[in-house]
Amino acid sequence: MPEFRQNMVSKEWVIIATERAKRPDQFLQRKEEKTSLPPHRGDCPFCPGNESMTPPSLFSIEKNAAWSLRVVPNKFAALQSHLTTERKHEGRFLKVDGFGIAEVIIETPFHNRTIATMDLEEVKNTVLAYRERYIALSKSKQIDLITVFRNCGEKAGTSLEHPHSQIIATPIVPPHVRDPLYQSQLACDTYGNCIYCELMGEEKRHQVRVVKETKYFLALCPFASRSPFETRIYPKIHRSSFANLSDEEVMDFACVLQDTLKRLFYGLNNPDYNYVIRSAPLEEKDVKYHHWYVVIVPKLTTPAGFEIGTGIYINTTLPEQCAEFLREVRVQ
Amino acid sequence: MPEFRQNMVSKEWVIIATERAKRPDQFLQRKEEKTSLPPHRGDCPFCPGNESMTPPSLFSIEKNAAWSLRVVPNKFAALQSHLTTERKHEGRFLKVDGFGIAEVIIETPFHNRTIATMDLEEVKNTVLAYRERYIALSKSKQIDLITVFRNCGEKAGTSLEHPHSQIIATPIVPPHVRDPLYQSQLACDTYGNCIYCELMGEEKRHQVRVVKETKYFLALCPFASRSPFETRIYPKIHRSSFANLSDEEVMDFACVLQDTLKRLFYGLNNPDYNYVIRSAPLEEKDVKYHHWYVVIVPKLTTPAGFEIGTGIYINTTLPEQCAEFLREVRVQ
Repeated sequence: MPEFRQNMVSKEWVIIATERAKRPDQFLQRKEEKTSLPPHRGDCPFCPGNESMTPPSLFSIEKNAAWSLRVVPNKFAALQSHLTTERKHEGRFLKVDGFGIAEVIIETPFHNRTIATMDLEEVKNTVLAYRERYIALSKSKQIDLITVFRNCGEKAGTSLEHPHSQIIATPIVPPHVRDPLYQSQLACDTYGNCIYCELMGEEKRHQVRVVKETKYFLALCPFASRSPFETRIYPKIHRSSFANLSDEEVMDFACVLQDTLKRLFYGLNNPDYNYVIRSAPLEEKDVKYHHWYVVIVPKLTTPAGFEIGTGIYINTTLPEQCAEFLREVRVQ
Repeated sequence: MPEFRQNMVSKEWVIIATERAKRPDQFLQRKEEKTSLPPHRGDCPFCPGNESMTPPSLFSIEKNAAWSLRVVPNKFAALQSHLTTERKHEGRFLKVDGFGIAEVIIETPFHNRTIATMDLEEVKNTVLAYRERYIALSKSKQIDLITVFRNCGEKAGTSLEHPHSQIIATPIVPPHVRDPLYQSQLACDTYGNCIYCELMGEEKRHQVRVVKETKYFLALCPFASRSPFETRIYPKIHRSSFANLSDEEVMDFACVLQDTLKRLFYGLNNPDYNYVIRSAPLEEKDVKYHHWYVVIVPKLTTPAGFEIGTGIYINTTLPEQCAEFLREVRVQ
């Protein structure tokens, strides 16, 4: 029997369409060319030796007299850092100059790695760079929101093969971010607690959707997953901002992030995916009602007209089965 | 210079990324196999002669002793009509049985047509069927929202080639639908008028984003288009529900819908697309603050992590240029 399920925080609904249900292993990707990328490409702007093809580093981590991670301004940024944030009217329409800061984290010198196949140290460096740049960017008075994300593979909207993440800092908190904050604030006013902390308690009692628990993190397939194998990683210690992670938490986050991506990589043959860190707007970096997390969305399905019209995603897998499948993947 | 633009109603932002800008003609699709589909397929459940492969018709239009349009229950529906709409708790999670009604509109007997290439009479029949079934379904006390949509092509999430639209009736008004209603209600409380009527007035003054105006409709590329060639068609007479269209408006809507889709078809070489009719929830079928419209989204780009995280779409085209391009397409 199909069912509607509600996201406890955002109040968005999904349909878990069991009549059309697919078993998790039906989402196995065919092996693709990208599994045989070369370790270095002469024409790749992110490969060692081609540093002049990018702007100079804003942050880097060195090892044996060479870089092992670089953060550079995004040369093809959708936003520019020399503009103003003044709201302007064009008739009754509202607009703002495209002010913003966009950076690229080049996660490793190796062209053919991805988070799932990197050395753990590289993943740790990546997460450390997220935090360092997040903190650096949050010092700008013009910035209201910092979004850290990773697009992996063509279906996930990237054309650059070399392993990288992105940070975009904007002078705007959009409704898509604000609306769940209203909801979590209302829940906090009502129940007195962070709704995400409650959600984790609930998931730990049920256990069925938990993929992995570490000292500081809980990875799970959400009750109201919008798509097959959607996975979220929540910090167990309440923190509204990603910037507030301790060093020990950063290291544990790197482990659980890599562990989750390995499960997807080996379990489903390297599916394309996006992930995004949902951290509080800068003004709410220390509030009781928001709790940062990362959402990982493998690109296995195509949203269509019904999703565009209603925001109700039709998911043909049971999140409980996806979690079970991921738990059973043998992680190397 | 890039700019943020705000959707006047929903308050969502987009980035018009002019630095990465592509000219409209760079979105021309390569000619694909689907342009040479056969007019009839023996194994297609929607082709004439195969009526037994679908449930019996709920509505049909005949011509010369054969059907020219059929509406049938969706055999592979994500929702089922024999369930209840009672909200249930599973711990602190909320769910509802997957009650709903899903129907398919088989728009023509010809396997190889699409709205852009049909006889105008077939398009008129299609729109008439939308209205008839919308009205019929709205009589169910359990239904709160009716969504009419069309997925055209594989990138738009359909695997069935035969020209068809879908209707899904749900017992739920989701936040994605409710949130813009709050906004348009607030605008109406503030300014005293329907914000969509205001928007049309504004667009008619500017003219730059208008694609086509008919007696009853205005087709335009929105100021804050989320993706290249997004096009919306608004009725000029204020109506919150699609069901309230007069016969004359239905016929004019068929003309402007086909005209717009022809411009996309001939201008961009038959791109995949979704369209969806955004009609008011049934309880608000006659309100001052909502105004139904159709949004057409050609599938020319891939939303990625930034869009998932913020809901801010990065659009690499100017809506004004897209509208100009579409206006200049010679419609056969």
